[in-house]
Amino acid sequence: MGEVKNKQVVLKNYVTGLLKESDLDIVEGTITLNLPEGSSEVLLKNLYLSCDPYMRNLMNNVEGPDESFVPYTPGSPLMGYGVSKVLESGHPEYNKGDLVWGFTKWQEYSLVPSSQINFKIQHTDVPLSYYTGILGMPGMTAYAGFFEVGLPKKGENVFVSAASGAVGQLVGQFAKLSGCYVVGSAGSKEKVELLKNKFGFDDAFNYKEEPDLNAALKRYFPEGIDIYFENVGGKTLDAVLLNMRVNGRIVVCGMISQYERSQPEGVTNLTNLIIKRIRMQGFVVTDYYPMYPKILEYVVPKIKEGKIVYVEDIVEGLENGPAALVGLFNGCNVGKQVLLVARE
Amino acid sequence: MGEVKNKQVVLKNYVTGLLKESDLDIVEGTITLNLPEGSSEVLLKNLYLSCDPYMRNLMNNVEGPDESFVPYTPGSPLMGYGVSKVLESGHPEYNKGDLVWGFTKWQEYSLVPSSQINFKIQHTDVPLSYYTGILGMPGMTAYAGFFEVGLPKKGENVFVSAASGAVGQLVGQFAKLSGCYVVGSAGSKEKVELLKNKFGFDDAFNYKEEPDLNAALKRYFPEGIDIYFENVGGKTLDAVLLNMRVNGRIVVCGMISQYERSQPEGVTNLTNLIIKRIRMQGFVVTDYYPMYPKILEYVVPKIKEGKIVYVEDIVEGLENGPAALVGLFNGCNVGKQVLLVARE
Repeated sequence: MGEVKNKQVVLKNYVTGLLKESDLDIVEGTITLNLPEGSSEVLLKNLYLSCDPYMRNLMNNVEGPDESFVPYTPGSPLMGYGVSKVLESGHPEYNKGDLVWGFTKWQEYSLVPSSQINFKIQHTDVPLSYYTGILGMPGMTAYAGFFEVGLPKKGENVFVSAASGAVGQLVGQFAKLSGCYVVGSAGSKEKVELLKNKFGFDDAFNYKEEPDLNAALKRYFPEGIDIYFENVGGKTLDAVLLNMRVNGRIVVCGMISQYERSQPEGVTNLTNLIIKRIRMQGFVVTDYYPMYPKILEYVVPKIKEGKIVYVEDIVEGLENGPAALVGLFNGCNVGKQVLLVARE
Repeated sequence: MGEVKNKQVVLKNYVTGLLKESDLDIVEGTITLNLPEGSSEVLLKNLYLSCDPYMRNLMNNVEGPDESFVPYTPGSPLMGYGVSKVLESGHPEYNKGDLVWGFTKWQEYSLVPSSQINFKIQHTDVPLSYYTGILGMPGMTAYAGFFEVGLPKKGENVFVSAASGAVGQLVGQFAKLSGCYVVGSAGSKEKVELLKNKFGFDDAFNYKEEPDLNAALKRYFPEGIDIYFENVGGKTLDAVLLNMRVNGRIVVCGMISQYERSQPEGVTNLTNLIIKRIRMQGFVVTDYYPMYPKILEYVVPKIKEGKIVYVEDIVEGLENGPAALVGLFNGCNVGKQVLLVARE
């Protein structure tokens, strides 16, 4: 195969404040669909790309804290999780035709180091797009955060924010499967219905219709919250701190409401951590990748038996990627936001 | 013995904002130094009373969260930890002449339920006042917070705020005994000298002379902080969050800078919890009381061998109690603030 066109989504420049579609560009590049002689890299055809909140943080022009945070390079394609097909492989672990998921680029074809591929896809009898969600990074995030960081016990009260999103919808279902009482918050009537009727949350509310979040939480949790799965930060976190129970856990997964602010909102109720003996713990899903087989073992049978459902919001075409990504920060997506680049 | 005078320190009314001496009253009451017939309570002669930051929280007119927080009653004497001598006992565990420490009242003589006595004092070959500090609640706080919540490892970097106080001076010494690098912050040149020359901190700084706390922490911890022992909250916590290392722990013991504010300062850097996998955990020392024998076993020999020192700021006379307590919130005390009520 020779040189072909390679459409890509490029970050024009570092972003401050709200991400706009105009911060991203659709560029028609080219790529040679042959591995360079002696290369140990892997040539991928990207099928599904994942739109995730953390991507906004990689667009800031700041030096990352520690070694764990490498921002995007303006002029280059975005990077992110995706499901891809191996076209050619210079690494013995991968072969032509393999389906894989890992950290790829927002373009039709990508040449990536094999270390960026996370896993070969084994369960092809579920939708392939699921490997950007329930069977990919967000699924592991929900599992590791809820079970490994949250340490739930039967009968506990669980609150999930951004509850209909890629991670939240799973946390709620994991909580129900663990015998917990679970309430979710989301930003529209449609999402609240989904939480109650599709995902089986015990209750749910639209945070945009609650002028007093503290009062809302007191209504849904008269006895307080044992586990808060934190996806949004800011005012919601502050209200939750007033409503935590003794020995509660706050699993800090994300704070999407803060990512586009140059000055984050101040959280004022942290003294509640003391008297209530609260453990507030951040985590990064990559630390839990060795658990992936265990997670598949838990999740895959439940998908097949209909005990866990997963809602995706699939947009087709790389050229629609910028809108999909921007929509994520405005709560436009209903369920996991996926970008379909190419069918197998 | 019949009725005798019983001087006491009384809370006049609930307090908002800064505690003033005029919020407290010295009242000359009386008490009959006999146990009522059939009483199971214990009659105490109070010797040393402990001035502690948490006492300010009990002066707020708010319903406490959960069952763990019972505010003071205006018109009644303050309550707090103290060292006392048993004059009469209606409970078989205590006998006349026993020295005990526990939760008593700010008065010369107190009748208390036996459940408020925490421990009989066994080691009388150390200063008796130590049972309000290193061998009492603050000592257990330092031990439980640093070892049980902080889980220190040799070679880690430890930062302690309010470092010359009742708890902080011990945390620093425990950190050195554990092979850690430890830096403390305090509010005067004298305290900084104490930290470096008496308690053996590796370094120390006066936070009042640091216009940019973030820059100060970067200077003392170029590689970041593994354990932050949090005593103050607010701006210090915000600066620490920018300087934590991956897998760091923030032991939330107290937030004294916030207790007198009607509106606490907002903490804006909490997103650092995520990427750095930080565990921020509050605790209450009473949960660790069962460990007291183990703590004594660790601390007492080290006091006798001079491997741990303890600095107290002892004020004599109940009538000087209000000034001593107010001084605590202005950083007037150098070391553990104790009120000597009576010599044995």
